[in-house]
Amino acid sequence: MWPIKLPVQAATPKTIAIVGKYHAAGIAQSLSDIAAFLEAHGHTIVFEAETAQNIALEGYDAMSPEQIGQFADAAIVVGGDGTMLGIARQLAPFNVPLIGINQGRLGFMTDISLDRMIPVLADMLDGKVDVETRSLLEATVFRDGEQIFNALAFNDVVVARGASSGMVELTVEVDGRFMYNQRSDGLIVATPTGSTAYALSAGGPILHPSLHGIVLVPIAPHALSNRPIVIPDSCEISIQVVNGRDISANFDMQSLTSLSHGDRIVIRRSAHKITFLHPEGWSYYDTLRHKLHWNEYPSVEGRLQ
Amino acid sequence: MWPIKLPVQAATPKTIAIVGKYHAAGIAQSLSDIAAFLEAHGHTIVFEAETAQNIALEGYDAMSPEQIGQFADAAIVVGGDGTMLGIARQLAPFNVPLIGINQGRLGFMTDISLDRMIPVLADMLDGKVDVETRSLLEATVFRDGEQIFNALAFNDVVVARGASSGMVELTVEVDGRFMYNQRSDGLIVATPTGSTAYALSAGGPILHPSLHGIVLVPIAPHALSNRPIVIPDSCEISIQVVNGRDISANFDMQSLTSLSHGDRIVIRRSAHKITFLHPEGWSYYDTLRHKLHWNEYPSVEGRLQ
Amino acid sequence: MWPIKLPVQAATPKTIAIVGKYHAAGIAQSLSDIAAFLEAHGHTIVFEAETAQNIALEGYDAMSPEQIGQFADAAIVVGGDGTMLGIARQLAPFNVPLIGINQGRLGFMTDISLDRMIPVLADMLDGKVDVETRSLLEATVFRDGEQIFNALAFNDVVVARGASSGMVELTVEVDGRFMYNQRSDGLIVATPTGSTAYALSAGGPILHPSLHGIVLVPIAPHALSNRPIVIPDSCEISIQVVNGRDISANFDMQSLTSLSHGDRIVIRRSAHKITFLHPEGWSYYDTLRHKLHWNEYPSVEGRLQ
Amino acid sequence: MWPIKLPVQAATPKTIAIVGKYHAAGIAQSLSDIAAFLEAHGHTIVFEAETAQNIALEGYDAMSPEQIGQFADAAIVVGGDGTMLGIARQLAPFNVPLIGINQGRLGFMTDISLDRMIPVLADMLDGKVDVETRSLLEATVFRDGEQIFNALAFNDVVVARGASSGMVELTVEVDGRFMYNQRSDGLIVATPTGSTAYALSAGGPILHPSLHGIVLVPIAPHALSNRPIVIPDSCEISIQVVNGRDISANFDMQSLTSLSHGDRIVIRRSAHKITFLHPEGWSYYDTLRHKLHWNEYPSVEGRLQ
Repeated sequence: MWPIKLPVQAATPKTIAIVGKYHAAGIAQSLSDIAAFLEAHGHTIVFEAETAQNIALEGYDAMSPEQIGQFADAAIVVGGDGTMLGIARQLAPFNVPLIGINQGRLGFMTDISLDRMIPVLADMLDGKVDVETRSLLEATVFRDGEQIFNALAFNDVVVARGASSGMVELTVEVDGRFMYNQRSDGLIVATPTGSTAYALSAGGPILHPSLHGIVLVPIAPHALSNRPIVIPDSCEISIQVVNGRDISANFDMQSLTSLSHGDRIVIRRSAHKITFLHPEGWSYYDTLRHKLHWNEYPSVEGRLQ
Repeated sequence: MWPIKLPVQAATPKTIAIVGKYHAAGIAQSLSDIAAFLEAHGHTIVFEAETAQNIALEGYDAMSPEQIGQFADAAIVVGGDGTMLGIARQLAPFNVPLIGINQGRLGFMTDISLDRMIPVLADMLDGKVDVETRSLLEATVFRDGEQIFNALAFNDVVVARGASSGMVELTVEVDGRFMYNQRSDGLIVATPTGSTAYALSAGGPILHPSLHGIVLVPIAPHALSNRPIVIPDSCEISIQVVNGRDISANFDMQSLTSLSHGDRIVIRRSAHKITFLHPEGWSYYDTLRHKLHWNEYPSVEGRLQ
Repeated sequence: MWPIKLPVQAATPKTIAIVGKYHAAGIAQSLSDIAAFLEAHGHTIVFEAETAQNIALEGYDAMSPEQIGQFADAAIVVGGDGTMLGIARQLAPFNVPLIGINQGRLGFMTDISLDRMIPVLADMLDGKVDVETRSLLEATVFRDGEQIFNALAFNDVVVARGASSGMVELTVEVDGRFMYNQRSDGLIVATPTGSTAYALSAGGPILHPSLHGIVLVPIAPHALSNRPIVIPDSCEISIQVVNGRDISANFDMQSLTSLSHGDRIVIRRSAHKITFLHPEGWSYYDTLRHKLHWNEYPSVEGRLQ
Repeated sequence: MWPIKLPVQAATPKTIAIVGKYHAAGIAQSLSDIAAFLEAHGHTIVFEAETAQNIALEGYDAMSPEQIGQFADAAIVVGGDGTMLGIARQLAPFNVPLIGINQGRLGFMTDISLDRMIPVLADMLDGKVDVETRSLLEATVFRDGEQIFNALAFNDVVVARGASSGMVELTVEVDGRFMYNQRSDGLIVATPTGSTAYALSAGGPILHPSLHGIVLVPIAPHALSNRPIVIPDSCEISIQVVNGRDISANFDMQSLTSLSHGDRIVIRRSAHKITFLHPEGWSYYDTLRHKLHWNEYPSVEGRLQ
């Protein structure tokens, strides 16, 4: 079983940070309820600074993500997977355990529903929790031998052409060995977490979060035999821009840098990890089935006998 | 607009056949309701012979599919797409217009739901009807120059290997011109109607029912560049078995013949047509969206900004 | 057989235009050879203006594409498929028959190799020619009810997001009927000619050039069930931009316009046609096999028994 | 770098087994050359029994695979990947290092070409060798609680329907957790080695041989969102047959057993490993590029600007 059951010491008071999504006003009441519930159980509550600003809740301290990283024992994130993605990358250097609460639509990373959150959090505080660790990527862009950009990615690093241009041509090496020259719309390098995001849309496989792998998924590749390839996450991937216009590198589709011919992106697994806390008995496959409608069939009776 | 609106003469009494699915017992009441409703409107009702046997409804004539073909002005089919597939192929030589009623789960060909059927049928009898014509395939198997098998297919003709064998190798010609030698699990030749059945599972495109096309979809082809190809439905397709074991040809996955090395299947559009009657305003795209869950998204917020 | 054999009157002297690729200097000798050969057979030779400028061949008239359209009986295009694509779109209103000569690498539209061109052209002048007609798309962009852009496309019309943005959301209607809301990197609307270009890279099927169809291929669609769909080329397709940033419409990846929210592109088959002249006995499938390496297998012997 | 460079003690005489493909007659001279060369270097040569029978070479001992497993220090396999697949599975319990020589067409596992084999083997005997370890699967079939079949698979375990039947329905669990009910033509469970065989044809990703993963690839799945999924190779996979006819389980497409409703196959990584010896500097990516034609492009110039 992948998630490790961790005997969290429920008795010990903790500092717990609450993070809401960008436009948090609509969930102000929920955030307030969580805060009240946790405070009643003896914990110290802080709010992420932007969240605090949005909901104007009184009586709680506001902290920057860095401060949360230093002082909080756990962070509760209320929103969608995008919200979780943003804060997780910021908190990665501090390895604060994260709990994800969604607003009605189950997320891959926000697996607790808003309307059941209080009893679920109560159980989790009692130690009924599964701990899961996820890997991130660290990408560095080199130009003329100089490092010009550096970023973490929790989902993916995407090197792609602009809408107005033709194809991009990239030279890909893995651990110093030449893999291929690829002509395509771009290349997605995804973690297992990112394998169910953009990479999946582009035809990539699903990687179980505990797989020690990274997947390279070409976007609309010119060579039809150019298939997604999964490599160990101990590998170092080098992508050099050979040709194309308006090329950029995206990190989790949330930060961006422009690339020139000859630029080289080096991607490796980050030394940091993300830790998720799930309700006990949580199953990744339950989420997959739900998100991908695996229980629903297109009902092509013609195939059945 | 594809469906042609046909001014059906509602005033004229007609002979209408009712066809139920194989195990029709569970829908006996529905069939009886339809019969009573139509009879009350002055129509003559007959039941397909097997259906009649299953539900033991008194006071109606039973007819073989051939008799229905000769004497009925329309047939109402209650069941799933598989039921429609079977009877449509049998009635094809007679071009009896078909109305499809499903039992709760929308079908591609059974587009009227059981619980709304009476008012919908009432409207259709009033001439509020869209008429749609669909093509079939006719396949003939030749061995040593002799014709050994002949069948119609409404969805698809599938030449495939058995589970215990390796790959099949097929030589495909179109209108006498060599297309390719294909090594694969098999080859699906599908009508637009069949494009949303097995062919879709094997990676084929959707063909709109009014497209004059046939799609060839390889199943797990050895050559990765071996993509589905859509050709005009005026073409004659020849498939010759070159290699492989336990090879067979399926027609709508409902009838079957074994093939030997050297056997050749010749597939062309049948001279027959299937005519569907839909409630006025019917849209193929509504069915597609519903069946393929196009309104539901996997909700990968990480991609959205 | 698709290509129609046309008894071209070889005896009649004709005006034949010669078009080279953008950097035509490297093929100056070949263009000169063709001109000399045709002139020796009594034909009048003109050069496309830019080509003439590039190769500085004396003694021949230079004409703009429009003039070629008005005065030439046929045009010989030397280069790759990109060269053909550009000139074909410009000549489309005039329906000048086109002959394509490639420089060593077989093209889908430039099917005569440079080193065999003289004997092949000799045969074609003798009437040994197959005539093939291909369709184009015409696309019009509407903003606030006003038409703001209009272009022809021989391969495809592509509505896509920029590299720096997330997904685009498009509302697609066909013949006034709602098809779907699509969230993706973009949507490719391709002719049969374009089905082997970008659309193929994005997972679309191959459409035989004589199929009266248009294919809609989503690029990295969010909904995994969002498959390519082929519709009759008599349909009118409307694509409205609902959401996304940096969105543009490309025409054959050669011309471009920016789109705003609410903009609507209407795409229909153009009234113009492209006519290709092929050497007698030409087969589209030969080109397909060659271009897609259908004769070469990845050699996975493990599958064979 | 994945392949570990192992200082093989070239000075020590060894017992080396030679294995030819099933119909080895055509390569008798090559096998004889290898034997003579190795003997001249002081090694003891034995022939695999069937190979010996086929080529009738005198003066060498013949051994069963089991005896080779016990007594040989290495085995040289001459043939295609299918030959290697068969002997590797038999030798797996003994972990005899394997060297693969192909007959002109590069294999994924037979990476030395016949015409360069003597100098390459000479270098390898001098210790210029890269060692690579690959995993196998062990599958056990249970019926009514009893174990009825057990086999190793180096490429894949495939549970699939027969040609004459409709779909198979399988319940898949991983480490005791429910993954999904799958309706399809079947399910491929593949090692990294098998990821470039049947699984690739069915749409699966490539797994680098050193990835600790197993990939589940559905064959023509009914649910369009049913994508390949890669899980850690420490997982135990259980596949239960729920529905369908003529269902069987294949192991490397070389051995086979029939399955009934309720049968359960349990698949886990075998305790055995396969060790390959490659010429020093060998690169998996070189093989991939060559086998999948990654250097050749379909040349769709229309996409290029």
